[in-house]
Amino acid sequence: MILGPGDDAAVLRPPDGCDLVVSTDSLVEDVHFRFSTQSARLVGRRAMVANLSDLAAMGARPLGCVAALCAPGSLELRLARGLVQGLLEEAGAHACPLVGGNLASSRQTSVTITVFGSVARGRDLRRHRVRAGDRVFVTGTLGGQALAVSRAETEGRPIRLLPTPRLRAGQALARLSGVGGCIDVSDGLVADLSHLLEGSDLGLQLEADSVPTPAGFAAACRKRGLDPLRLALAGGEDYEIAFTLRPQAARRHGVQALGKRLGVPVSEVGRVVGSGGIQGVPEHLGWTHF
Amino acid sequence: MILGPGDDAAVLRPPDGCDLVVSTDSLVEDVHFRFSTQSARLVGRRAMVANLSDLAAMGARPLGCVAALCAPGSLELRLARGLVQGLLEEAGAHACPLVGGNLASSRQTSVTITVFGSVARGRDLRRHRVRAGDRVFVTGTLGGQALAVSRAETEGRPIRLLPTPRLRAGQALARLSGVGGCIDVSDGLVADLSHLLEGSDLGLQLEADSVPTPAGFAAACRKRGLDPLRLALAGGEDYEIAFTLRPQAARRHGVQALGKRLGVPVSEVGRVVGSGGIQGVPEHLGWTHF
Repeated sequence: MILGPGDDAAVLRPPDGCDLVVSTDSLVEDVHFRFSTQSARLVGRRAMVANLSDLAAMGARPLGCVAALCAPGSLELRLARGLVQGLLEEAGAHACPLVGGNLASSRQTSVTITVFGSVARGRDLRRHRVRAGDRVFVTGTLGGQALAVSRAETEGRPIRLLPTPRLRAGQALARLSGVGGCIDVSDGLVADLSHLLEGSDLGLQLEADSVPTPAGFAAACRKRGLDPLRLALAGGEDYEIAFTLRPQAARRHGVQALGKRLGVPVSEVGRVVGSGGIQGVPEHLGWTHF
Repeated sequence: MILGPGDDAAVLRPPDGCDLVVSTDSLVEDVHFRFSTQSARLVGRRAMVANLSDLAAMGARPLGCVAALCAPGSLELRLARGLVQGLLEEAGAHACPLVGGNLASSRQTSVTITVFGSVARGRDLRRHRVRAGDRVFVTGTLGGQALAVSRAETEGRPIRLLPTPRLRAGQALARLSGVGGCIDVSDGLVADLSHLLEGSDLGLQLEADSVPTPAGFAAACRKRGLDPLRLALAGGEDYEIAFTLRPQAARRHGVQALGKRLGVPVSEVGRVVGSGGIQGVPEHLGWTHF
C-alpha cells in the first residue's frame, strides 16, 4: 500500500508482470444477514470471506480492498464498529489491507466490498475451461455452514465459525499445469459445478458419496432431521474451491500430493462427460438433471 | 480488459511501472438522488462521474470499474435499465470499462461504484502536499451544478447537463513538475480547499472575485434570488480540479499555457499562507474562518 484512506483515492503498487483481479459483492441486512443470528463482527468477516474467496477461485494473491458501508443513523454504534472490526480482522488475516472506503446514509444496512488481487499474467483460473474427461475435485469439506445456519435459525445458536477463503490453494492451483475450470463453492456444490458447464454442452458425473463433509456431520444432521447429502450438495457459503484437472494431470499429481501442494485436503468428486448436465445427484433430492 | 463479467472476478492488465489507484463511492436514493428530479440515466452517469473525478484528482488514467446495484424487486425495469445505461455511457466515454458487478435485493436503491486507474509510480497527485507560498488554481467553472439542482427543485426542471470529470487535466498535472496539493471539487470549493490544509497549520487566502463561474451565471442566480458567490464557493458536484503550484512553477507555466496543457481553462483563485485557515470568504456568507 502506497497511500491509504484520506485522499481522493488509495494507491497500491501491484507487482510488474501481473494481471489485476477484481471482484465486488454486497451483503444486505435482512437479505444476506441478520444481526440477531450472528454478531456484527462475524457479519463483517463473512462479507470479507465471500470476496476473498472470489480471489482464491481466480488464483490471485490479495492486494487490498475497499468497503462501502450504507447504514441508517439509527444503527447502533457497537454494530457498526463490530462490522468494521470484522472486515478488518478478516482482511488482515489474509494480508489484504483495507485501503479505502465510503460511508453513506441509507434506511437499510449494507456493505459492499471490492477486493483486488494479482496473478501472474495469463495464469488466472477460470470457470469455463473444463473439457470432457477432466476429473473434478473439491477442497476441504462441504455442508458445515448450512448446518450452522440451520442450527442458528432453529436453535438460536449464534454462528461462530467461519470458513477460510482458500487463497493459498487457489494460488497453488494457478501455478499448476493441467488445471481446467475453477470456481468457489458459494451457492452450493451442484449449483456451482453447473456454472462450470455454462456455455458448453458438457455434462458432469458427480460421485455424491465422495463429497467430503466435516467429522460427525451426518450424525449431527440426522439428529436434527436434516438430510446430510442435501446440505453437502446444496448448502452454500462453504467457500471451498471446486476445480477440474485434465486426466493426465490428475493421475500425475494424485489426490494426496495435490492436497499437500494446495495446503488443504482435496477430494475427487466426479468427472466431466460429453453431455447431460449434472448427473449422479440422488433422485430423492429432486434434481435429476440440473 | 482481459476477462469481463461472468467469472468469479474480472481480470485487467495494468501497465508495468505503474501504481494502482482505487476509489469507491455509493449513491443512495432519497439521500444522493431522486428519480423525480433527474432521469435514471443521469443518475447512473452522475455516479460514474463522481468516481472518475476521484481518479482525475489523483492524476490517474482509468483502467476499469465495477458496480454493485442494490434495489428492491419493485424498482421499475426502465429505471434499473436507465441507471445501468448511464453508468455504461459515462464509463465508455472515458475508456473505463465496466468489468464486473453485483446485483442484490434491498428495500432502497443504491449503487456503489469502485474505479481503478493507473499512474506512473510515484507520480500520483495528493491532497496534503501544499506549502506556504503555493498558488491555488481551479479548472473550468464552479456553481453551475448548484444552480441546476436549485432549478430542478424549485422549478421542476430536470437536470440535463453533467460536469465532465477532468481526467485529461489530472493526467497532465501528474506529469508536471512543481505541483503541490490536488483535490476534486465535489463538496464545494471552500470545503474542498480546506481538505488541502488538513493536518497542517497552513492557511489559504482565497480571492473570491477570481472564482470562475459559467457565462450568464450571476444573472441567472439573481433572477432566482440566489447568491451567485454562495453557489460558486459552496455548491458541490462541479467535479472541477483544485490544485496548487509552487510559486516558481506558477510563474514558469503561466495561467494561459497551463490551461492549454491541461486541456481546460484554469483560473488562479488564491495562495497558500502560513496560518489562519481559509481566508477571504465574504463575511455575509457566514464563514470567516472555515
